[in-house]
Amino acid sequence: MSQALYVGVDLGGTAIKVGLCNAAGDLLRLFEGPTQTEQGTETILNNIAAYVKELVPPGTPEWEAVAGVGIGIAGFLDIPNGIIQFSANLPFRDVPAKQIMEEKLGKPVKINNDANVAALGEAWGGAGRGVDNCVCYTLGTGVGGGIILNGRLIEGFSGMAGELGHMSVVPDLEAIQCGCGQMGCLETVSSATGIIRMAKDAVERGDKTSLAYVENIMAKEVFDAAKDGDEAAQRIVSRAAYYLGKSMAAIAVVVNPQRFILGGGVSKAGDYLFDQIREVFVKLTPEVASRGVDIVAAELGNNAGIVGAAGLFLRA
Amino acid sequence: MSQALYVGVDLGGTAIKVGLCNAAGDLLRLFEGPTQTEQGTETILNNIAAYVKELVPPGTPEWEAVAGVGIGIAGFLDIPNGIIQFSANLPFRDVPAKQIMEEKLGKPVKINNDANVAALGEAWGGAGRGVDNCVCYTLGTGVGGGIILNGRLIEGFSGMAGELGHMSVVPDLEAIQCGCGQMGCLETVSSATGIIRMAKDAVERGDKTSLAYVENIMAKEVFDAAKDGDEAAQRIVSRAAYYLGKSMAAIAVVVNPQRFILGGGVSKAGDYLFDQIREVFVKLTPEVASRGVDIVAAELGNNAGIVGAAGLFLRA
Repeated sequence: MSQALYVGVDLGGTAIKVGLCNAAGDLLRLFEGPTQTEQGTETILNNIAAYVKELVPPGTPEWEAVAGVGIGIAGFLDIPNGIIQFSANLPFRDVPAKQIMEEKLGKPVKINNDANVAALGEAWGGAGRGVDNCVCYTLGTGVGGGIILNGRLIEGFSGMAGELGHMSVVPDLEAIQCGCGQMGCLETVSSATGIIRMAKDAVERGDKTSLAYVENIMAKEVFDAAKDGDEAAQRIVSRAAYYLGKSMAAIAVVVNPQRFILGGGVSKAGDYLFDQIREVFVKLTPEVASRGVDIVAAELGNNAGIVGAAGLFLRA
Repeated sequence: MSQALYVGVDLGGTAIKVGLCNAAGDLLRLFEGPTQTEQGTETILNNIAAYVKELVPPGTPEWEAVAGVGIGIAGFLDIPNGIIQFSANLPFRDVPAKQIMEEKLGKPVKINNDANVAALGEAWGGAGRGVDNCVCYTLGTGVGGGIILNGRLIEGFSGMAGELGHMSVVPDLEAIQCGCGQMGCLETVSSATGIIRMAKDAVERGDKTSLAYVENIMAKEVFDAAKDGDEAAQRIVSRAAYYLGKSMAAIAVVVNPQRFILGGGVSKAGDYLFDQIREVFVKLTPEVASRGVDIVAAELGNNAGIVGAAGLFLRA
């Protein structure tokens, strides 16, 4: 085993997923076990170590080839020092996770936040493979993101690079308040939550729409209705697509990426959504910054975080 | 002379300015001579070589210490290959400038566009010294810019990174067309040209303003009138400041810089302008992406391009 290998860890509130990657960003195999969040910090960190050693048994040539273990975590992190300051769904409070895990594993460890790590995974080993400059959106409950320039993850001054959901894109008169406190954030219109809110508003104000007969409206129902010709649903999708395209036009003249990668539940709407975004993006972007730029779907799904965590040693 | 030195060249249509920098970004000395644009490409390139050798005489220990010569040029460039494809105010058409200058000087040569190079100069040796993540605006006839992340100039996929003047920020109903063909670009409201246009519009439609008695309105007259209490002029400055702050709020959640640096003629309005921009920026940016971020004036003036060209060897 002369080629270096990298382990990625996706630390979630319910499950810990670990994966082994080669230096090209290929995911070689996976292992998964329970987080046991209720048992506290020490157990969680021991579980990570145990699952990593289950994935790659110590003493084997593969173990010797592992050059580092990366961990993706949802929370506030002191990334350079490897400290988990706070996490909403894990009991960590100012835990020096990097140092503890390096002692447990005898390997270099890096930590980073889950959205950045997922973006890096897509850029390195997924839909951005071979492309040096990518911007990734995750369209789920909120809108997350990550920026990869010259092949490397951009963190920013206070770790806020790629917080694309909080770009203010909706004009003042149409804007509503975002969970972050600002008005008109992208997340208020282009997340699953935003799409569901617009659908419920349409039903409540009595718009003629088939969504009035759906008991529990999810984003998928809105897209399905729009594809079936429901005009109210079509307006909602157009709005979600418009502001995504508008945010991309702004990004195009800031960092000028070659590729936008869209993942998360909302992106499953496919070309019906993507075509509308592409049209807006081309319309709002100077030609020289949009020519040759593509907007594509993410490929790695739930494994993006594992691959990206492994990639922290080569691409962060 | 054990420490490496770097030469920067600011190639303009009228003058060629060359400067010597150390590895810390200090400008040690300058030399300037005429471009002689009318004499054609060969003469211009010979002039660059002659002025560089005037600045640092070959055979001296300093010459031996020169690790590279960087050149900033206004035009369309093939940066990796060092080719000047087209320049509006110089007679270059597909000239392999990097290769020719390397032969003339016997030193490594890099070329890059003037806006990027000026931004890099400010970030490296000017108002961004010691700050790894900076975004620079040049507020002149147009609005230019440049992005420096992790201490390095960002070029983007097609060299359009930092084209901040073409971010669409003005709401559709208020937008006018930009020279680039798009609607509502920052440049239409926050450049000197935009400010003058808004002032002339105010005068023409009969707004009560002291600007009506100014024969040749420039941006400075608008700022002076605003500072003197002219309400029409104050509205124009507020508008220019608002859209600058709004564009910075968008940038804050994309690349999350620590510092915004504003140069060019319009920036000479000083804190009267800057305070308004700061207020809008803080209002429109999530707190965690605006905390500790400052908005400051450029320091190097016309020397920014020389310093940045020298910096291409360490920071691009």
